[in-house]
Amino acid sequence: MNDSMILGFADSRKLATELATRLELKCGEIELHRFPDGESRVRVPAELPRHVIICRTLDRPDKKLIELLLAASAARDNGAINLTLVAPYLCYMRQDKAFHAGEAVSQQSIGALLGTIFDAVLTVDPHLHRIERLEQAVRCAQAISLTATRPIAEFIAERFERPLLLGPDGESLQWVSSIAQGWGFDFTICSKERFGDRNVRIHLPANICISDRDVVMVDDMASTGRTMVAAAESVLAKGPASVSLIVTHALFVGDAEEKIRATGINHIWSTDSIMHPSNVISLVPLLAEGIQDCL
Amino acid sequence: MNDSMILGFADSRKLATELATRLELKCGEIELHRFPDGESRVRVPAELPRHVIICRTLDRPDKKLIELLLAASAARDNGAINLTLVAPYLCYMRQDKAFHAGEAVSQQSIGALLGTIFDAVLTVDPHLHRIERLEQAVRCAQAISLTATRPIAEFIAERFERPLLLGPDGESLQWVSSIAQGWGFDFTICSKERFGDRNVRIHLPANICISDRDVVMVDDMASTGRTMVAAAESVLAKGPASVSLIVTHALFVGDAEEKIRATGINHIWSTDSIMHPSNVISLVPLLAEGIQDCL
Repeated sequence: MNDSMILGFADSRKLATELATRLELKCGEIELHRFPDGESRVRVPAELPRHVIICRTLDRPDKKLIELLLAASAARDNGAINLTLVAPYLCYMRQDKAFHAGEAVSQQSIGALLGTIFDAVLTVDPHLHRIERLEQAVRCAQAISLTATRPIAEFIAERFERPLLLGPDGESLQWVSSIAQGWGFDFTICSKERFGDRNVRIHLPANICISDRDVVMVDDMASTGRTMVAAAESVLAKGPASVSLIVTHALFVGDAEEKIRATGINHIWSTDSIMHPSNVISLVPLLAEGIQDCL
Repeated sequence: MNDSMILGFADSRKLATELATRLELKCGEIELHRFPDGESRVRVPAELPRHVIICRTLDRPDKKLIELLLAASAARDNGAINLTLVAPYLCYMRQDKAFHAGEAVSQQSIGALLGTIFDAVLTVDPHLHRIERLEQAVRCAQAISLTATRPIAEFIAERFERPLLLGPDGESLQWVSSIAQGWGFDFTICSKERFGDRNVRIHLPANICISDRDVVMVDDMASTGRTMVAAAESVLAKGPASVSLIVTHALFVGDAEEKIRATGINHIWSTDSIMHPSNVISLVPLLAEGIQDCL
């Protein structure tokens, strides 16, 4: 443990510092300089210990991936033998097949890239649909997929006596049920039709009574938020006591949050996997435990 | 040859089309879609031949590199066995050592990345300073470095009877002399001091007579243009007949071109390695020849 160090970029300083404090490790910063021609210069602290843990969440990922590649190679040039990436949000996990002929299966290419750069990758609730285990995408010695279901369930339990958890689609079934089961929450799943990046239709299950319930919509991520808008509108039409949304990954691109709030929803909450004003659930204890297991 | 195809992105369609016409090869487009969350979807034509040549110049490179990685993997998934990258401008070649402790040696990391993606890489006038051969950075089966010295020399010979070629610094000596020697042009080299990304001082050689000469400043690239501004000012103070600038790679970031024109320089010319209004010298014949050699 003493022979480990945590490094963060300016945009992941908070996560790096909090993890370092909790694990009693040294913490350093990866400096980024953007040259006028658009190239990046990356600098790590000189003289690193054997094991270096680089923290960076991978929303808006393309530039970040190149910077990570450069940071990792600088870390190895400066003494690191074993490199771990802590990326609470892992990018490109949704493009897990060629939906049309000729499409890149980005989950596999980006996973392979991360596998060549790092010895271990830790993430939280990666969006795995057609594969079961993270190492089928991220091909490194240790590909560790943690889940935020426990901290999310604890957060819900503190706030509601008899919540009704609602997953937006079939893909969320396993995840929603694992939040619900530990605490005995009621839960149900909608069905979803998608007609493009920003156009979805949600069907509530017919046999569920929503009126006067505290409905908590949960999902692994909110991106354009269109799914959540459609779900919130359907739920609100049924006269619930309250409607809240909790996601692990608060991507909220463009006007997503505004559109969700405009439905009249009571709360939007998220973990701190991606920095956002809705962050209320810290993933630091979970990530620290995960890092300890792989040290 | 018939079992080859050229692919371009929307931003490299012109190059791809011209190369395909000249080499009598089929040409296809790589489609790019940016998802709202900042991830890229890349799609290549389905059913590709064994040998696929992907064209893309690599100025402003970080996003482009990830898109190339995805395109290459999609190409392999769709039948390509042998992948060639034609990148008239190759990025990250200038960061060839850790100038300060802890810095990433990007030339090596990005070169290694390209080497894992492609079987062959073709480029023009890469900025190699501390290494001699491109394959010391780009580690693939064929790393081919072409030079624009011949088309540049031909262009100069068509316009000036007795030009004086001027290289901005010692690094340019070999390159400037190879443009000059085939045609017997006079040439000389300045010395340069650099004080940051945008601050340089240029010293003209003491023993050279500039008055009434057609001075042609040549360099492999113009980025912030500060070197060229300083050189042009020094030259113009000596009463030349004309001052022109020719570069292979017209990066011209920010107000670079404006600042160079403001010195009172007569012409700014470049090859088409990076699309820019100053492009006058086509690299297509040179690149086509290079591709034929590696087919």
